Parts: sequence; structure tokens; C-alpha cells
Amino acid sequence: MTYRMPAEWTEHEGCLMAWPVRPDLWGDTLAEVKREYAAVARAIAEFEPVTMVAPPGHGDEARAHCGTGAGAGTGTGIAVVELPTDDSWFRDSAPIFVLDGDGRRAGVDFRFNAWGRKHSPWDADDRISGLLLEHLGTPAIRSGMILEGGAITVDGEGTLITTEQCLLHPNRNPEMTRQEIEAELKARLGVTTIVWLPYGGALDTETDGHVDGVCAFVAPGKVVVQLPADPGHPDYVRMRANRAVLEHSTDAQGRPFEIVDLPQAAFVEVDGREVEVGYLNFYLANGGVVVPVADHPEDAAALAVLAAAYPDRKVVGVRARVIAYGGGGIHCITQQIPAATQTTATPSTATQTTATPSAAARA
Amino acid sequence: MTYRMPAEWTEHEGCLMAWPVRPDLWGDTLAEVKREYAAVARAIAEFEPVTMVAPPGHGDEARAHCGTGAGAGTGTGIAVVELPTDDSWFRDSAPIFVLDGDGRRAGVDFRFNAWGRKHSPWDADDRISGLLLEHLGTPAIRSGMILEGGAITVDGEGTLITTEQCLLHPNRNPEMTRQEIEAELKARLGVTTIVWLPYGGALDTETDGHVDGVCAFVAPGKVVVQLPADPGHPDYVRMRANRAVLEHSTDAQGRPFEIVDLPQAAFVEVDGREVEVGYLNFYLANGGVVVPVADHPEDAAALAVLAAAYPDRKVVGVRARVIAYGGGGIHCITQQIPAATQTTATPSTATQTTATPSAAARA
Repeated sequence: MTYRMPAEWTEHEGCLMAWPVRPDLWGDTLAEVKREYAAVARAIAEFEPVTMVAPPGHGDEARAHCGTGAGAGTGTGIAVVELPTDDSWFRDSAPIFVLDGDGRRAGVDFRFNAWGRKHSPWDADDRISGLLLEHLGTPAIRSGMILEGGAITVDGEGTLITTEQCLLHPNRNPEMTRQEIEAELKARLGVTTIVWLPYGGALDTETDGHVDGVCAFVAPGKVVVQLPADPGHPDYVRMRANRAVLEHSTDAQGRPFEIVDLPQAAFVEVDGREVEVGYLNFYLANGGVVVPVADHPEDAAALAVLAAAYPDRKVVGVRARVIAYGGGGIHCITQQIPAATQTTATPSTATQTTATPSAAARA
Repeated sequence: MTYRMPAEWTEHEGCLMAWPVRPDLWGDTLAEVKREYAAVARAIAEFEPVTMVAPPGHGDEARAHCGTGAGAGTGTGIAVVELPTDDSWFRDSAPIFVLDGDGRRAGVDFRFNAWGRKHSPWDADDRISGLLLEHLGTPAIRSGMILEGGAITVDGEGTLITTEQCLLHPNRNPEMTRQEIEAELKARLGVTTIVWLPYGGALDTETDGHVDGVCAFVAPGKVVVQLPADPGHPDYVRMRANRAVLEHSTDAQGRPFEIVDLPQAAFVEVDGREVEVGYLNFYLANGGVVVPVADHPEDAAALAVLAAAYPDRKVVGVRARVIAYGGGGIHCITQQIPAATQTTATPSTATQTTATPSAAARA
């Protein structure tokens, strides 16, 4: 049974998010970031169901912030579930879902070490993929490799793009060679061609350069690339090196990449610190593109670039200034569940997760 | 006293080379590589004096191979000196010479660890800079950083280009941050702007991607870049990423880089192994450019590119197939001694080398 990670534009069953609660991580911004997460959930719920995972005891607070979503009763809406988590970046700690050739779904449970052991504790986030898959009734495929979903982007047709800065960083899988990392990505995600970009964002010290701050697939053979227009931007040269790699590479089907440039950058001050709100870190919901914005003059131009890139989708900006302060964007705090077209059976090559569900998960 | 490493095109007093003798390093190719080294020495001696350093007991053999050089008696020629060495790549183990504002010369003695502890022993090569500087009567400036001369190229006007692949490799200075490495380069070599290219050659596993297989300064503001034309070349994409970095960077004087592309590549078989003879790895002698060639159809076109880039110099190709098999080219086996325009005094900021000269050095 061969599984393949579908592209983010493939029809979703819904979206997973995690509720932020830790004062030690968010400090004075905690109240505001809860409002931002809730607004993101409501924006996505206009397009597809959202499951918001709150740590035990925080469900009511999440419900109070998020509401039931505009689409409640119409098949979308927001459901809150309590499961133990450490942090709130499900792109990176939630499962990466794959489909087999018959449309059966499984979830790959990669190891998680808080982006190279940066924020302790992370044991609950390392276990959350198993609990989520059990909650969803989706078979789990375990991998011993550390991988965050934000470190990869796929076209669903055999191509994966990642950055050397992150995936070869010694704080992730120092015992694995580049070839071994490639082999594990190919085996677990069903890709055949891996395009390595040299750089993530220079300022992206939280994730060591996730590709979801650098580029995203728009369609097979088409990629949108962050390409800051300002020569003073710390990524001005680096993103041009990345673009050169894409210009001269081909995808798994032998196609060159059509490249859409996203030149806008928004630096804003949050809690006394300058942060960049990256427009590239958007989420593709069913029929929608949910884009981080910054209440910044560049917002409109960035949204226009994405509206032109995705002419068949509704493009929506949601303020994500504090999320950026936390180190990411809307893509970082979401994880799509692709729609299965057949009842999921336990795959022959997969191992059921052996993680014991917590009391909260059984509740 | 501020020292600066002059560009390679600055007038030379002469050139240092080391004689290859170790069967464990060269195997069946040892006899042929001696002929190649001797031919390189004779070609350079057409332009400037060559000092060939042979390990004790090997001086006569080196003299027999090299002769006295075409320019003997005219101020150039080849002199053989016996000093203990391990290997024969003086670009990397010899001193890097610097000049102060008054034209006084010193030599920076960086640490050497055989390209990340690849070929044991390397203790004599780690000491050779001190012995060479004593032999030349040139003050030594010691650095605790591991650095090979092939890992850098400078314009003599404040700009240094290097590769991340080599200089940030954990087998060199794992205890130093990128910022600390930059600070040491600036302090020792008198540069103010460091351009980091992401990649060295993909096949360059001996040096982990020295910049002298990637690009070289032709003149201030002008760089020649290896840019393989064949999309199947393992560096096809990587060198285009490097070129993008150069295209969008400026030098220490604020100038953009004019870029000359060197698209030729020559793969040949040596001792049953396919090796690439890199045309980029040339040496600038006084009035000359001494270029590795491969007895390959691409030779003539590569020499023509370099002749156009250096219209005021005589461009000479010297066969360097076995040198390539050993992991480098003509630039790798040479080290220029810039001409001092004033008698060298012991610099106030420098420390005389404390290495004890061997008996051979005193001989």
C-alpha cells in the first residue's frame, strides 16, 4: 500500500488547530494571541470544519473565544476537543496526513522535539499526533525522524520542497545523513523528487528556516516565493538564491517551476519587539486562502498577489501580528485533514500508534 | 598596524609549492602527479620565481623533475628547499600573506587540520606556515582558527567571498559561530565585507566546497563563476544559486559584481575513477594565468573565456588530471607571496611564530 501526502489544495475534511494557553510562552501577549487564534479559526470555518484542540480544562475558554463558527449547522463550524498539548503549532506537531491510491487516509506521526529542543516541555506535543489520529479513527504510521510539517511543502504529484537550513540542522536529526532524510521523506510521504532550497528566513530563528516562510505550491508546477523587494531586507539575497534553485530545477513530473513572486514584507512592533508578519504563511482551506496580515500598508498588495495566484479561491486576510511574534503564521497553526474517499482500513505497511490515550482523549 | 590580504593579481615576489611524495595518498598515480606538479612549477616559473618545498630527503628528486625553470638566472626560476610537510596543497597549509598600508609583509598562520581531519598525519602541515615564514624572514601572525586558503577569495579592497558549505562545516571550527568566524576573517585579513555563497562543488568532498572551485576575483568588482552548462552536472543548480547571491550582493566598496560565466566542465577518468578537472582553479602569476586543463575537448573554450577575462595576461593551460584526482587544481597547490614594498619589520600587533624550526629548516 503506497501512501502519498496530498497537496494542501486537495479537498479537506477539515482543519486541526491547537489553543494557546501558556503564559511562559506568550507573556503579555497571551490574551491577544487567543483573539488572533480564534479569528483564524472563524475565518477557516467559513470554508471547512475546524477542530480546535484545547488542553484539558481550557475547552470552555476556547469555545468562548471561537464560538461555533459561521458555518455551524451547515457542515462547517468549530468544534473544541480537549487533549493534552504543550504548545499550539499544529502544522508542526500534528500528524501529516497521507492518502493511498484508493483514497484511504492514514496519518504519519513524525517525532517532534520543539524545533530543536527550544521550548520545554514538548513531550505532550510529541504524543499529540497519536492522540489526534485515535480521535479521528485514522491509522497511524510512525516515523522515528524528527520532522515538522512546516519544513516541507508538496505538490501531491511526487515533489517535495524543503530547506537545508532547517532539515539539515544538527538540532533535528544529527544522526541521519541527507540521503537518509531523503529516503525517509520518500518512504513516508510518497514523494520521488526533493528540491532542497539553501535558505529559510534569516530572522526565522524559531524554526531554523521552515519552507512555509519561503515558498508554497500554488498548483502542480507552480510555486509562490517570498522575494522581498527591499535590498535592505535580511532575506533579499537569500530568497533570490532560493528562487534561482527553483528556476533551474524540475519537479517530479519533469516540469520546470512557474514562479509567482511575493515581494511584500511587513515589519511591525509587537510587545516592544520588531517582528515580520510573513504573507507567505497562508492556509489553503476548501475554496479559500486564509492569509496572515499585519494592519500594514503592504497588506493589500500581498493579498492582491495571492488573489491573482489563486483566482478560483476567496482570499481572506486575518490579523496575525502576535502569531508572528510567537514565531509563525496561519500556516504554522493549522493542519489540514484531507478528505478520505474510502473508509479507512488499517494499512498493511502501517503500525498502529502505541501511545496510550489520556483520560482527556477518552472523555 | 592594519594588515590586508592583497588580491592574487597584486605583484608577487614568488610562488610557494610543495612536492608530493606520499604513496599512501597518491597510490599508482604518484609518478604521474610528480610530473604534473613539475610542469605546473615550470609554467609558473615563466612568470615568477617558484620555491618548491620538498620533505627532507626528497629535494634531489624534486630538482630532477622540476629543473631550474625557464627563467633561471633571469630573476625567476625554481628553487627547491627541504622542509617537513605531510601533504602538498600549499594553498591550504601555507601562510596567507598580508600587507600593511606601508607595503610591509606578514604571514597569517591559521590552524590546519587536513580539511576536517581527513588525511592523517597533518601535524607537519599544521606547522609548515611557521617554518615557511621563518625561511622567508616574514613575521608570523598566529590565528587559532582552522582556515585553508582555498576557502576564501579576496579583492584586496575589503571583500572576501567564501562558501557556507566549507567554512561553516562542523569539521572545521565547530566551536565558533558564523559571527565569530566573520570577526576572525576581518581581523586577520583586513576585510570588511564577507559574501557567503551557499555552495561549493557537490563533488568536492575533499575540501567540503572550497570557493576556489566556485569563483575567483578577476578584478575589483568582477568575478568569474563556474556555471556548468549541462543540466545534468551535479552543480548545475547549485552554481546558479551561488550566482544569484553574487548578482544581488555588493562588495565592500558598494559595487555590484560584474560576473563572467565559465560554463565548461571536463570529466576524465584517472586511475579508474571519474574526476572533474575544474578550469576555475587557476593561479594568477605575474602577467600570467596558469589554468588546469584535462586533454579534453572543453579545454580550448575554457581557456578562451579566461583569456577574454584577463586580456592583459598570458593564459597557459597545464595538464592537471591527476591533481584533480587528488582533489584540487593548480590554485590548490600554489600560494603567492605578494611583493613587499618596504623592508618587513616585526609588526606591533603580530606575534612571532614560536614553532621551533626543524633541523631541515635550519639546513
